[in-house]
Amino acid sequence: MRIALDAMGGDRAPQVVVAGAAAAAREGVEVLLVGDEAQVRAELARLGADLPVWHAPDHIRMEEAATEVRRRPQASVRVAMELLKRGEVQAVVSMGHSGATLAAALLVLGRVKGVERPALLVEFPSLRGRTFLLDGGANADCRPSFLVQFAAMGLAYAEASGALAPRVGLLSIGEEEGKGNALVQEAYPLLRAALGERFYGNVEGRDIFLGTTEVVVTDGFTGNVALKLAEGEARVLLTWIKEALTSSFRARLGALLVREALARVKARVDPAQYGAMPLLGVEGAVFIGHGSADALAVKNALLRAKAMVEAGLLARVRQRLSALHV
Amino acid sequence: MRIALDAMGGDRAPQVVVAGAAAAAREGVEVLLVGDEAQVRAELARLGADLPVWHAPDHIRMEEAATEVRRRPQASVRVAMELLKRGEVQAVVSMGHSGATLAAALLVLGRVKGVERPALLVEFPSLRGRTFLLDGGANADCRPSFLVQFAAMGLAYAEASGALAPRVGLLSIGEEEGKGNALVQEAYPLLRAALGERFYGNVEGRDIFLGTTEVVVTDGFTGNVALKLAEGEARVLLTWIKEALTSSFRARLGALLVREALARVKARVDPAQYGAMPLLGVEGAVFIGHGSADALAVKNALLRAKAMVEAGLLARVRQRLSALHV
Repeated sequence: MRIALDAMGGDRAPQVVVAGAAAAAREGVEVLLVGDEAQVRAELARLGADLPVWHAPDHIRMEEAATEVRRRPQASVRVAMELLKRGEVQAVVSMGHSGATLAAALLVLGRVKGVERPALLVEFPSLRGRTFLLDGGANADCRPSFLVQFAAMGLAYAEASGALAPRVGLLSIGEEEGKGNALVQEAYPLLRAALGERFYGNVEGRDIFLGTTEVVVTDGFTGNVALKLAEGEARVLLTWIKEALTSSFRARLGALLVREALARVKARVDPAQYGAMPLLGVEGAVFIGHGSADALAVKNALLRAKAMVEAGLLARVRQRLSALHV
Repeated sequence: MRIALDAMGGDRAPQVVVAGAAAAAREGVEVLLVGDEAQVRAELARLGADLPVWHAPDHIRMEEAATEVRRRPQASVRVAMELLKRGEVQAVVSMGHSGATLAAALLVLGRVKGVERPALLVEFPSLRGRTFLLDGGANADCRPSFLVQFAAMGLAYAEASGALAPRVGLLSIGEEEGKGNALVQEAYPLLRAALGERFYGNVEGRDIFLGTTEVVVTDGFTGNVALKLAEGEARVLLTWIKEALTSSFRARLGALLVREALARVKARVDPAQYGAMPLLGVEGAVFIGHGSADALAVKNALLRAKAMVEAGLLARVRQRLSALHV
């Protein structure tokens, strides 16, 4: 089982990306680096690592339009998708231009039957483990039917992650049916009809961290705001805690003793732990990471992609979606 | 300057509400308790406090419809609004049914000229101080023009709070103009035209806690999700930190030394610090709190209402809105 990694994608590519690939390879992931061969080999040499490279002379830069993938078949992210399409790799991971990665996946792989729009799945840490939220930002404006498809894909992902009987919450601003905006009010009965007992009903913002349901569905605008708000809040709270722990001699002394314990909390909320977001609803296993990813995030993205392919993610997504149309 | 407090509003009314009123009175707030006189006087006697009471024999319960205020003129929240309308008090604070409070304010006070829909203002702690976000949940579905009015009201509130040259960010999922959902894309040029340099442009979820702008505008659905997500995340992170600090003998020892420092961080993110949300865009100073408010939240809501009336909040809101129509 081999995973193609867009070696040119990300703010600090190829350095950080190649370093993450080397770390994942040491943990048993078979990685194929896709990008400018000379640059990638130079990085590999610097690290003393030896990984296969597939040459792609072009790549889509962060400031370019996503639609560029249509007219640039030699771009690394597009070449990676072609390798996936041909079965030469079983997954694609990109920390690069997320719009371009989405566009390349749609162009080359196409959508799973029954999916109007693919969605990004975001993982939040929660009191009960993890909450999977989608859409994390692929679709700013959604129709109610999209949310039903997001729910089916979220259930498939949760099951592939080991959840036994996951349920879906519809993100809203009140628990009762009828609360929320027009989209939520229209989606509620559709979700009830499509998912039956697997639909929990409405959940609120606080339920994401409480872990009330394993899966939460919302439009990509609200989902992306939630993702970035959560990251910002964690960063700011940890900054304040760090300040508080150096605010007096007494606190500094105590900080020495609690440092390890607090580092574990920090790791729990660190976005790098999650590596990359799966793009669900395209005909292949595709994972999209932060452009600002570090080597740990790249490594974790590759480990996660491997685990999900092994858990039969794509087949589960297809099955859950086809069950919607029985 | 006198403030009417709905003594019957909130999950633990009148006990907690009267206790908060007594605490605020000790700090110089002139409070008029509006509610069932016998019940309220019994609470006052229990506390050994002596505050004026305005009898209102009825009140809207949490599980009742907001529209009940129309046909129940003796309900405490409606009586409080009538007192404000007649100038017998200068502000109303309610920790009760927020929909009913909004309905009563609209019915009795009406809207400020130029406002299509009143909005709730939420205060977030930020790296730079505070971020004022609106709408916090009064309007689940918004038109672009609403966001312009929210921006004007947010600027008025920030100025009343002492900000010298506050700016407004439009909450979106990408910094560049053109990123976001349909609402944001339509609102962007309207905000630019109406606010000029006071409009910062798009901000993202993380900017709320970073404090990139003093004011953030969004629809009431996204705003309410953001508010509740932020509360849930703070609660969960602090739970994990508490767990981490009792996870070993070493950590427990350190925890004794850092306890005070961490309590300050907790206080900074505690929703009770903020007391209540101002309802902006109605013809009077109205503040709506959490039903789950404790006495500290009630006291802080009253102190905040007093400070805002003294800062000329309503006149500032009227002025900022009329400036939109020059």
